Amino acid sequence: MSTTVGIVGATGAVGQRFVQLLDDHPFFEIGVLTASPESAGKPYREAAKWRVDTPIPEDVGELTVRPTDPDEIPDGVDLLFSSLPSSVAGEVEAPLCEAGYVVSSNSSNERMADDVPLVIPEINGDHLDLIDVQRDERGWDGALIKNPNCSTITFVPTLAGLDEFGIESVRVATLQAVSGAGYSGVTSMEIIDNALPHIGGEAEKMETESRKLLGNFSGDEVSHHDMSVSASCNRIATLDGHLENVWVDLAEDVTPEAAADAMRVVPSLDLPSSPDPLITVFDDPDRPQPRLDRTVGGGMGIAAGGIQATPDGLLYNALAHNTIRGAAGASLLNGELLADEGWL
Amino acid sequence: MSTTVGIVGATGAVGQRFVQLLDDHPFFEIGVLTASPESAGKPYREAAKWRVDTPIPEDVGELTVRPTDPDEIPDGVDLLFSSLPSSVAGEVEAPLCEAGYVVSSNSSNERMADDVPLVIPEINGDHLDLIDVQRDERGWDGALIKNPNCSTITFVPTLAGLDEFGIESVRVATLQAVSGAGYSGVTSMEIIDNALPHIGGEAEKMETESRKLLGNFSGDEVSHHDMSVSASCNRIATLDGHLENVWVDLAEDVTPEAAADAMRVVPSLDLPSSPDPLITVFDDPDRPQPRLDRTVGGGMGIAAGGIQATPDGLLYNALAHNTIRGAAGASLLNGELLADEGWL
Amino acid sequence: MSTTVGIVGATGAVGQRFVQLLDDHPFFEIGVLTASPESAGKPYREAAKWRVDTPIPEDVGELTVRPTDPDEIPDGVDLLFSSLPSSVAGEVEAPLCEAGYVVSSNSSNERMADDVPLVIPEINGDHLDLIDVQRDERGWDGALIKNPNCSTITFVPTLAGLDEFGIESVRVATLQAVSGAGYSGVTSMEIIDNALPHIGGEAEKMETESRKLLGNFSGDEVSHHDMSVSASCNRIATLDGHLENVWVDLAEDVTPEAAADAMRVVPSLDLPSSPDPLITVFDDPDRPQPRLDRTVGGGMGIAAGGIQATPDGLLYNALAHNTIRGAAGASLLNGELLADEGWL
Amino acid sequence: MSTTVGIVGATGAVGQRFVQLLDDHPFFEIGVLTASPESAGKPYREAAKWRVDTPIPEDVGELTVRPTDPDEIPDGVDLLFSSLPSSVAGEVEAPLCEAGYVVSSNSSNERMADDVPLVIPEINGDHLDLIDVQRDERGWDGALIKNPNCSTITFVPTLAGLDEFGIESVRVATLQAVSGAGYSGVTSMEIIDNALPHIGGEAEKMETESRKLLGNFSGDEVSHHDMSVSASCNRIATLDGHLENVWVDLAEDVTPEAAADAMRVVPSLDLPSSPDPLITVFDDPDRPQPRLDRTVGGGMGIAAGGIQATPDGLLYNALAHNTIRGAAGASLLNGELLADEGWL
Repeated sequence: MSTTVGIVGATGAVGQRFVQLLDDHPFFEIGVLTASPESAGKPYREAAKWRVDTPIPEDVGELTVRPTDPDEIPDGVDLLFSSLPSSVAGEVEAPLCEAGYVVSSNSSNERMADDVPLVIPEINGDHLDLIDVQRDERGWDGALIKNPNCSTITFVPTLAGLDEFGIESVRVATLQAVSGAGYSGVTSMEIIDNALPHIGGEAEKMETESRKLLGNFSGDEVSHHDMSVSASCNRIATLDGHLENVWVDLAEDVTPEAAADAMRVVPSLDLPSSPDPLITVFDDPDRPQPRLDRTVGGGMGIAAGGIQATPDGLLYNALAHNTIRGAAGASLLNGELLADEGWL
Repeated sequence: MSTTVGIVGATGAVGQRFVQLLDDHPFFEIGVLTASPESAGKPYREAAKWRVDTPIPEDVGELTVRPTDPDEIPDGVDLLFSSLPSSVAGEVEAPLCEAGYVVSSNSSNERMADDVPLVIPEINGDHLDLIDVQRDERGWDGALIKNPNCSTITFVPTLAGLDEFGIESVRVATLQAVSGAGYSGVTSMEIIDNALPHIGGEAEKMETESRKLLGNFSGDEVSHHDMSVSASCNRIATLDGHLENVWVDLAEDVTPEAAADAMRVVPSLDLPSSPDPLITVFDDPDRPQPRLDRTVGGGMGIAAGGIQATPDGLLYNALAHNTIRGAAGASLLNGELLADEGWL
Repeated sequence: MSTTVGIVGATGAVGQRFVQLLDDHPFFEIGVLTASPESAGKPYREAAKWRVDTPIPEDVGELTVRPTDPDEIPDGVDLLFSSLPSSVAGEVEAPLCEAGYVVSSNSSNERMADDVPLVIPEINGDHLDLIDVQRDERGWDGALIKNPNCSTITFVPTLAGLDEFGIESVRVATLQAVSGAGYSGVTSMEIIDNALPHIGGEAEKMETESRKLLGNFSGDEVSHHDMSVSASCNRIATLDGHLENVWVDLAEDVTPEAAADAMRVVPSLDLPSSPDPLITVFDDPDRPQPRLDRTVGGGMGIAAGGIQATPDGLLYNALAHNTIRGAAGASLLNGELLADEGWL
Repeated sequence: MSTTVGIVGATGAVGQRFVQLLDDHPFFEIGVLTASPESAGKPYREAAKWRVDTPIPEDVGELTVRPTDPDEIPDGVDLLFSSLPSSVAGEVEAPLCEAGYVVSSNSSNERMADDVPLVIPEINGDHLDLIDVQRDERGWDGALIKNPNCSTITFVPTLAGLDEFGIESVRVATLQAVSGAGYSGVTSMEIIDNALPHIGGEAEKMETESRKLLGNFSGDEVSHHDMSVSASCNRIATLDGHLENVWVDLAEDVTPEAAADAMRVVPSLDLPSSPDPLITVFDDPDRPQPRLDRTVGGGMGIAAGGIQATPDGLLYNALAHNTIRGAAGASLLNGELLADEGWL
């Protein structure tokens, strides 16, 4: 029994990834693609400047793009995947939820709202029950579910593995790929033979989202984790794959071997897009590397390595594919969890 | 009155930088160039595959390269600059010092020996007096002076500025340029669309050298600084310029503004290669960037920026040119200090 | 009925591609892997520093590497794939052929020998019958078959399509990927923010091999095509995929549309690794691009585009994956043709 | 006696180069900077996002930017340097010329107009006398002078050297730097691990401008050279420096040595920005390379190399710095010639 889904903002880079990842999906089939007024009315093949590394699925290429408007969504669509600039998303998503659609969104707006589930299924899938709180408060038939930022999603699963040892504070330095800024976000003049030591707003997302993701959900609200998180975000000349150096100060002593074991046993889920294992831990300190390891678990896995003891805890590296696990794949996996748990 | 100097290992990448930086130098003139037996006997122009971005000085190009052997150094040479692989340097430098030469060396061997001055002139020039201890212990007429590793020299001057606030611990993540590995150290296949999360031995150098550099010299010995330092070293696709993200935990509260002021007043020296100011602090959080800022102070300056408060202290970025300030220029500046203080 | 094959020089970059491409191959299964004496005796997993983007096939990883010596090839192996530096290959391949093995080789030695078939199956598969001449002349039970250089194989299929219009002369400028020089062939210092305008020996290979490939085989000998070919070879900072700008002076007038049609109908073969179509011609003048189009036809296709008329003929672009179609895949396809035609 | 000049479009990438190159210029001093209405009224330091690798000259940073309008140019300005998008330039430059200003423009509009001098001073400085024709026809007191496109200026000087041997046709393949497309012209996603085989309008500029530049000026008009020129333009991941592979078919036989000599004797001029020699010819076939050789002659020189005979003439490489010799420096040198010849 397939669920019919839509993609809101289907022509952009993340929208194209949704189309790619939904091709032959066991749960979902694409019923509608929406985009801005300029694209509406055109066949998707023409409206999207397709840049993903696999061909446009034939039938999707023929779909006519519709404007992003609740009245334009055809009957029978139960779930919408959204990836819009956060300014636009703020105005678009609420009316869709009000109109009864469940929206699994990659956009950054409302991620930190108290009644919006911010979810990585393998880590805090139970937060999905915030939907009940949300519906109560907002009077929606639909629901709004968010996944975290690409840089957040890279390191939080490893922290989840280590939390049994008492995480007190985290410092994380990122080496982020240019695709994270969108197709035109970083010019070639900025990044050839260069690195950028600052990405506006990115550190704040990592610092706040991570504490919400690792927080406890009481049934009514999420109490954020009390660890302190300090992030320093750098852009480098890689296409895909965010690499992060993570220092974790822990309450308990833990050996690198025990830390690796704790990461390796963070459970995967029995959902189509959940990788198994969730976290691949390398013994070779030269790994993970963005180009070699960003496709671990089909781009949905987390790679870790270089685990070593420090005076206050641990230092290690984490890596994830920022436009798969860190964007479209994250929303998709949330959609799978929604379907699996009967929210659609 | 010019001092005649020699370059040991003159044909390599750092050797070529020595030649470039010594062109028209107010203190020094090149009297001898040594290299491995295969190069000996050839004119320097032929022996060195010249890759520096300014032409070979005419007269230096005509010099005949000699073997690296104390007996081959002509009379009248008072100071040798050395940059050899540490394995080779270990065997070569001691006999030169024993034969009476003062050797200002960029090689990593013996940097941490108790009686070897490890010096950044603006930071711990007083450690030079360890030469007396060294001569006593080793019975040398000459002396061996070291400069720190390129990744160490990038962040230590900023720490020197902050030490008045009580440095307790440091975590530093590096984004290092490929030139730091030597001309053939990083292949193109390794680094295009990629980053390497580990550089063998590099973190250890940063962790130990920084504590020696910021240690107190009693007249007899250097007591290392008691801060803890944890480094995570990454290689990225930049040609020159190491960028570092630095977290410093401090005993005292300090505002970013006060921290910037403290960095800006770290004094420069009145030596030909010492930049003024030593540390250039940017207010724009997008700076420093490797390509734009590695030539600050003619490649001898330190650039800093992005200073912000964290729960335990500060987070900021530091940058230096790894083959100028971080290698040949570092040894040269040590040579200038040796000359200025009358050690030659 | 599977044929057992061996890989000579199995640990290198091209050797690893052979292993990858032979995984689950419908014709062939790997029976032996050979390498230099240092690797012999080790499990392949350990001897090869695996850098291909798919995991080592489990069973191949366990195979013990043998020395490259006819006496070390186990019974039952009928075909050897070879990719060795040409200096080494010259000494290794002849004894193997003499010992009765058919060797499909990617090495450059002997490509231009009169009695050695130099073959692109879709273009000049009939040249394979030179094997009879070779066996007569050399007294071998085995045979030596070569594929052309990666830069040659990129443009020759397009010339084959255009030859009906009377090719008089060709000028070709290449923008070649760093992988063509081997894993360590191009250093990062050479190629970041740079291009190299010369690749030793490469232009000569393109100029001579192309004329042999498009020559007529009489049954006794190949008469080389009488077109003149002038190549200018450049290395750029791409990982894989050689892009070439081709000017062809033609005896007849031809429109770009007719030229595109002529390229599109160059026939594919019914062999496992032959792409269909052989040549993909883009109408968009911005294509082909190395990163987007090097995987056309699973890396075995040729991409062309930008076809336009010039005063003397045509100008267009061609692209192929240099380590698949241009190396291991080329030898493999020759092996498939050998098997299909009953030479094994 | 210094001439006061203005820069039209002063805040853009080429405008910034003008400011840099005019610092301490022996002929010129900056009297006015104009830009779009959004920038007008601001100090230049604030209006320009300065990205050139030397600091903003102090006094220029303080100048107030004015709107681009003849009425806004202060008295005493005799020469304007212009670099605007060609669409804008078409509307802006004519009124300035009509108002009496001599405009030395880098914009592409009107380059091919019969009465507009298109000039490389060392090559066809005599074409400047077209100004008399232009003034007659247009009734201007001022004048409009153009320099060619960056990709044109790279290879035309070498052709000028070879023209004595009878140039019949030229094929030229370019490997162009991203800065040629402006600061935001090429995104990082387009060019990392990639090359673009097409640059809109670029080939046409090279094909037409080169024939005008090498044409004869009769006193009334320029008769374009009758050689045919076919260009294929590629973008690669270099920051600055266009590398070009040039095939020239010649009426006479010429050895590579004679060709090199002919290039070397193309005369330099006694103007401040004219390099000496104009063309540096390398014997090493590995040169010129963009990063190593783009600064030859202070970025105003042309580098050539790899000269070899072909069946129909010659093949060689040419290189020039596209934003210095190919843009701002080209207009500046034209300005110097205008001053030297008394046109101001």
